[in-house]
Amino acid sequence: MALGSSVGIVEAKRARFDEPLRLRCGATLPSFELMYETYGTLNAAGSNAILVCHALSGHHHVAGRYAAAPDNVGWWDNIVGPGRPLDTERFFVVGVNNLGGCHGSTGPASTNPATGKPWGRDFPIVTVEDWIAAQARLADHLGIGQWAATIGGSLGGMQAMQWTIQLPARVRNALVIAAAPKLSAENIAFNEVARQAILSDPDYAIGKRPERGLRLARMLGHITYLSDDQMADKFGRRLRYGEVRYGFDVEFEVESYLRHQGDKFAGWFDADTYLRMTKALDYYDPAAPCGGDLAAALAPAQAQFLVVSFTTDWRFSPARSREIVNALVKNRQDVAYAEIESQHGHDSFLMEDAHYQGIVAAYLRNVTT
Amino acid sequence: MALGSSVGIVEAKRARFDEPLRLRCGATLPSFELMYETYGTLNAAGSNAILVCHALSGHHHVAGRYAAAPDNVGWWDNIVGPGRPLDTERFFVVGVNNLGGCHGSTGPASTNPATGKPWGRDFPIVTVEDWIAAQARLADHLGIGQWAATIGGSLGGMQAMQWTIQLPARVRNALVIAAAPKLSAENIAFNEVARQAILSDPDYAIGKRPERGLRLARMLGHITYLSDDQMADKFGRRLRYGEVRYGFDVEFEVESYLRHQGDKFAGWFDADTYLRMTKALDYYDPAAPCGGDLAAALAPAQAQFLVVSFTTDWRFSPARSREIVNALVKNRQDVAYAEIESQHGHDSFLMEDAHYQGIVAAYLRNVTT
Repeated sequence: MALGSSVGIVEAKRARFDEPLRLRCGATLPSFELMYETYGTLNAAGSNAILVCHALSGHHHVAGRYAAAPDNVGWWDNIVGPGRPLDTERFFVVGVNNLGGCHGSTGPASTNPATGKPWGRDFPIVTVEDWIAAQARLADHLGIGQWAATIGGSLGGMQAMQWTIQLPARVRNALVIAAAPKLSAENIAFNEVARQAILSDPDYAIGKRPERGLRLARMLGHITYLSDDQMADKFGRRLRYGEVRYGFDVEFEVESYLRHQGDKFAGWFDADTYLRMTKALDYYDPAAPCGGDLAAALAPAQAQFLVVSFTTDWRFSPARSREIVNALVKNRQDVAYAEIESQHGHDSFLMEDAHYQGIVAAYLRNVTT
Repeated sequence: MALGSSVGIVEAKRARFDEPLRLRCGATLPSFELMYETYGTLNAAGSNAILVCHALSGHHHVAGRYAAAPDNVGWWDNIVGPGRPLDTERFFVVGVNNLGGCHGSTGPASTNPATGKPWGRDFPIVTVEDWIAAQARLADHLGIGQWAATIGGSLGGMQAMQWTIQLPARVRNALVIAAAPKLSAENIAFNEVARQAILSDPDYAIGKRPERGLRLARMLGHITYLSDDQMADKFGRRLRYGEVRYGFDVEFEVESYLRHQGDKFAGWFDADTYLRMTKALDYYDPAAPCGGDLAAALAPAQAQFLVVSFTTDWRFSPARSREIVNALVKNRQDVAYAEIESQHGHDSFLMEDAHYQGIVAAYLRNVTT
């Protein structure tokens, strides 16, 4: 059981920004909207706010549940609430759906003002840097001059870090969890197979939801989110029907699990969002403008850092987190690092774990508001 | 450069077997054919023969080249020939295309005698055990009562091992390279994504070659054949056009490589063969009839073993090879084990490497003919 309690019933909100936003890819959004949620109370100085950044398929519904849909619990509910690590008795916690998303923020499903039709595949490619720029508009809107902390796991951790580089005066602490300073060739390769699954689905070409492609992309994704050990523990070679059937229907439990996950995802996630989220991952490389020198890229940061990795995460292994830590240490910047024993692979950052959550809680207890 | 020399010009041969073969799945092939090649000369006692077993997409063309297609070099040419580890001046080396293959042996593209049409997706599921039974017929046909050695990498290594369990009196040495005693849940999961890519390709449903599915399957396969390190060295984050283009065409070199590999494969490999090869991998679990006790499964073996693994192989890691070694050691069976430093991941078993090939050569020098 999670310590503390849930934030309870929450409501999603929408903010509209009418000043054009120029994106890295060269396109300009004349205006945009962001869906967001907040938990806790912003103090008078606006100094107790924490921004939670989401990963590939995440969104603004970080904690609590909706009155009209009580089963729809936020994706990081176990860490946010009164008495939880992101303690809403002290902090004002903000969740946001990123630009290009499919949970209500401006994205491929939104209306393209130039045509009056949904953007679809014409929605521009968005980057981590664009997300920070858009999130900064939301901070302005909410009266938050400087985040007490930015936090996220995986692609969310990259955003938490990018804040410190891009808008260094606006963040005092960054909690960078299960992240990497950039994708490896292997990471890009997995993303590319997922994209090709979607792009080569004949339904995509005719403007229909490419369910086959989304399903394959998600099945593949799930393999990389779990650890080999965890899959062995959870499924092993267990047969679905107790015996081998010599056919192409489900034989092993792990096949059943993957198909189920793929089918579920294919039924609702937006393919054009998925394509863009993987691209944002591929492109992210803050050291590139500094000739690959990550320490140089991080030098402007004024934040203190907590970097967390998980032993069985092979998507972004502890070695990738240590690259960030080493760059910060080289700069004599303030960084704490925790490598958590966990069997849950990359997904560990979402899981209930006393040691992991204790470290995040302890770090945040020392963050002044 | 490989030591020794190539076997030169070779010819594929075909053997026909008219005695019905009952398969594990319950189906019976009334007759079947196997394509094979031989290099070197069988001695009068028939005691100097080595069987080379192939992996997922391999075949009987192990070494040398064809007079009519001099660019078509055998897939393991670097290890077979006069003065090479599988020294054709001492050994009679046999390559065979397995049942269910797409290189001329009876498989999905063959005519189903019951219908007069190609088997296609009705070709039965074949297992490693079925392959050993079929290969034994070939041994009989060639006058080989007992193999001096069976050898293979990956799925081929599983066959080399299975010979010692299934027909223990017929093999004196087994060289089990880059293999595992059974697939893990993660291994099965990757196979399942590849199969679903093929099975969900709409072209497959209408009897057309599912090129999209085969392409995705091969792209994914390639990621698991290489190591993260090797991909980093070979491609890193190098951009195809020197700059980011913010689109879904190739951006990174690794994408270009994967697409090229996928396209090439999709143009010629048989989808029904691919589906069956992955199933043979999934099902293989010689310890299962012994309640999961691999030592008990291997107890009947009369062979001596050389087990070889590669440090960066994450498809079948060294730990998987050590499971085989430990079972043999527990039985006090004769086993040598080598863990080779290599950056080539699972594909290392195919690569030129002085240390690796030296170990295979040294082992085989001590094999009496």
